[in-house]
Amino acid sequence: MQRYFAKEKNGNSFILGSDDLYHIRTVMRMKDNDKIYVVYEKITYICCLENVKNDIKILIEDVVENTNENSLEVTLFLPLLKEQKMDLVLQKATELGISRIVPITTSRSIIKLNEGKEDKKLERWRRICKEASEQAHRNTIPEISSVIDIKNIGSLPGLNLVCSTVEKEKNIKYILQKKQDYDKINVVVGPEGGLSKEEEGYLKEVGFIPVTLGDNIMRVETVPIFILSIINYEYME
Amino acid sequence: MQRYFAKEKNGNSFILGSDDLYHIRTVMRMKDNDKIYVVYEKITYICCLENVKNDIKILIEDVVENTNENSLEVTLFLPLLKEQKMDLVLQKATELGISRIVPITTSRSIIKLNEGKEDKKLERWRRICKEASEQAHRNTIPEISSVIDIKNIGSLPGLNLVCSTVEKEKNIKYILQKKQDYDKINVVVGPEGGLSKEEEGYLKEVGFIPVTLGDNIMRVETVPIFILSIINYEYME
Repeated sequence: MQRYFAKEKNGNSFILGSDDLYHIRTVMRMKDNDKIYVVYEKITYICCLENVKNDIKILIEDVVENTNENSLEVTLFLPLLKEQKMDLVLQKATELGISRIVPITTSRSIIKLNEGKEDKKLERWRRICKEASEQAHRNTIPEISSVIDIKNIGSLPGLNLVCSTVEKEKNIKYILQKKQDYDKINVVVGPEGGLSKEEEGYLKEVGFIPVTLGDNIMRVETVPIFILSIINYEYME
Repeated sequence: MQRYFAKEKNGNSFILGSDDLYHIRTVMRMKDNDKIYVVYEKITYICCLENVKNDIKILIEDVVENTNENSLEVTLFLPLLKEQKMDLVLQKATELGISRIVPITTSRSIIKLNEGKEDKKLERWRRICKEASEQAHRNTIPEISSVIDIKNIGSLPGLNLVCSTVEKEKNIKYILQKKQDYDKINVVVGPEGGLSKEEEGYLKEVGFIPVTLGDNIMRVETVPIFILSIINYEYME
């Protein structure tokens, strides 16, 4: 059954965005009395469609028992990547339960955001995360913040990790297994070519722990997928 | 420094494939006396180029100390996927140290291999793995076997796992943490829609353990990347 995130709840019916209505009518060719899942404020409802062709009504029929959405909040600080790679990371991070993505600029980032283009990019990234959330049957859509410079990250509550190019000894497993009682994890990933020593030094100062990811040499877009997979694994019950 | 896998060793020089020579001359525009890494029979050499424009010579200058290529052998049984998804899995699996990929057909696979097209596909898949191995500085290229039907998998030495749609209790963490002394792991991943009960039953008969991957609902191409990430993590030292 298809799943959509509602914009608004209106008594016993929902209001969906125009993209979603297009999807219902034109892509899925749904008919009156067809059922869909609608998620609103982290709750999933079973809804029935009425008057699909004209002024569509999306009526609540039932509430689905709350699935166990992870209580662990993971934030990924992600350098700007080429469009295709950015899209891939956003989609996969959403599937792997990410809570929040903060795009960052770093001194070695090749990709720059053109003045005035950020809003359009954010809109695109948010759409990708919304669609991936629907596909992955999530009750929440990851939040995507505005682009910030790495030097604006600051001190954060929780376990703070930075993928290091300098650190040789402490791997991510050592750190994750030592510290299992956090409800927030923040991870900073570097761009191609890695973070500069100065950037890593700065993050260390504000409380980020530099870690290695083992012996594999991964492309930059693989790193967040790898890290989110192992965080999921480490917190699997 | 660029890295290539040699086809042949000839005294103190190497013979590379025509794709690699094209890459050296036309893509990288290398010149005489430029250096490259050449991998041959799992050993990495530093080589010097001579006579790049005509009858190129690739002369050994030094041997690089053996990097710790993982001694764990992981084989992935992967259903045929759409081209772009297949390419993604092959590339990422190579980065994550896979030893062998066996493409499989299953009853619910939507993608079929057209008669007579297998050789061309295998050539494409092998090229992707070779290029990804070079990028990831591997000493080996993953082996890609011919396509087989899932019912021909048979009993295999090592830890054998199948991503289950039936199993509810045993997650992959429970199994991996219980059995850490294997040097071979074989993993069967299902197509979109999962394996049939019959297929899963068959694999169980020949010794595969059905496991769940936790609460996330992942796209089919995400599953192998997730599993290889956590196997890397579990065997990280």
